[in-house]
Amino acid sequence: MKAGVFDSGVGGLTVVKSLLEHKLFEEIIYFGDTARVPYGVKDKNTIIRYSLEALEFFKNFDVDIMIAACNSVSAYAIEELMENAPFKISGVIDPGVLALRNRTSDKNSKILILGTRATVNSQKYERLLRHYGYHNIESLAPSLFVPIVEEGLFEGNVLETVINHYFQNVKEPDFIILGCTHFPLISKAIKRYFPNATLIHSGEAMVEYLEETYHLKEEFPDTRLKLFASENPDNLKKISKIWL
Amino acid sequence: MKAGVFDSGVGGLTVVKSLLEHKLFEEIIYFGDTARVPYGVKDKNTIIRYSLEALEFFKNFDVDIMIAACNSVSAYAIEELMENAPFKISGVIDPGVLALRNRTSDKNSKILILGTRATVNSQKYERLLRHYGYHNIESLAPSLFVPIVEEGLFEGNVLETVINHYFQNVKEPDFIILGCTHFPLISKAIKRYFPNATLIHSGEAMVEYLEETYHLKEEFPDTRLKLFASENPDNLKKISKIWL
Repeated sequence: MKAGVFDSGVGGLTVVKSLLEHKLFEEIIYFGDTARVPYGVKDKNTIIRYSLEALEFFKNFDVDIMIAACNSVSAYAIEELMENAPFKISGVIDPGVLALRNRTSDKNSKILILGTRATVNSQKYERLLRHYGYHNIESLAPSLFVPIVEEGLFEGNVLETVINHYFQNVKEPDFIILGCTHFPLISKAIKRYFPNATLIHSGEAMVEYLEETYHLKEEFPDTRLKLFASENPDNLKKISKIWL
Repeated sequence: MKAGVFDSGVGGLTVVKSLLEHKLFEEIIYFGDTARVPYGVKDKNTIIRYSLEALEFFKNFDVDIMIAACNSVSAYAIEELMENAPFKISGVIDPGVLALRNRTSDKNSKILILGTRATVNSQKYERLLRHYGYHNIESLAPSLFVPIVEEGLFEGNVLETVINHYFQNVKEPDFIILGCTHFPLISKAIKRYFPNATLIHSGEAMVEYLEETYHLKEEFPDTRLKLFASENPDNLKKISKIWL
């Protein structure tokens, strides 16, 4: 099995990390659209256009599945990708909701969805959760989290002040969906603020989803990883060495 | 006189505001590349490519001068714009340095340059200041300032914590060059941290530069303003109503 993993930038490497740990693919082609990152502040038509360009890119590699690691792409462009793809398509929203259902059947569980403005405005997580009967849901777009991660402030005073700014009026949830590939990198600080909440990470969710939906098995210990970026591929390779 | 003002997003409206207040143009065409903002994190070749596309856009309007309000464009693409333009080109770096020279001839003045990573890495302000004999220069890229402005946090705890994070090891300067169109919107808080520093704003600097270099006069009280954006022009118009 050969996967194409698409993200607006370098954040999707957090999903690649989970795929590698679980040995699901023989080969992974990663494409980060670093020249046009971030997608989370762009509008629907722009996100669809950029996603279809990424689809064309993956057609050159004869992949079996294209994984949109970017939540904004998953929120707005999955249908258009499915209509135009000669291979399977998966976003991270269905996997995130599946992972939540795997962890609780209590429909009264308080669920906090964290995402970019684009992801939150789409209401895709919220609608799918309501479809499955969950109703105690709050959505929040803490827009400074992405730049803080990109600034490398994974700990410290700035991060804590910003977390407090966004969370001070939020009642502690039972589950937090980390609806942006950047957020796992500050999950420790989020967990410290809400110590009793279970965090759901797109990478782990994707592994569960692929195993349950496509019956993929842990069988490729030496996945080949090829990295591409629309700008500054050296920086992507550098970050992949640190994160993976 | 007809001006085309180009910015990566909405921030260039702070320059338009100064141009309107000083009544320098009969007509201003503003183009914000909101679909691909921000430029400050992109590399040189990408910034040049996007700037040349904006140049083509302004060719349709028969402008007399194209003003790059974006510091990242001014740092990387001015020469390429000049080579390809049938009209005058001005960035904000020459004006910023001229405004500083208009305010002090003391070459020992301590000057702090604040800009995006792209602007600071270009060293364009620094080299030009050194050319004029200033040598007590520090450059800083407070990358969270732009997202904080875009989040509308012009006051309060988050802004103050972030300002303290970046400035805590900086000795109070005599002059601060606000080398990014977003920074005038948090100039009060910057001024509160460094109360004795004189702040230099790209908009005011541009007015001084146009008056001194092209002998423009304050003669158009009813400037026509046309706004264009590569994405979500309604948002640009909404922000222009608030800012202008």
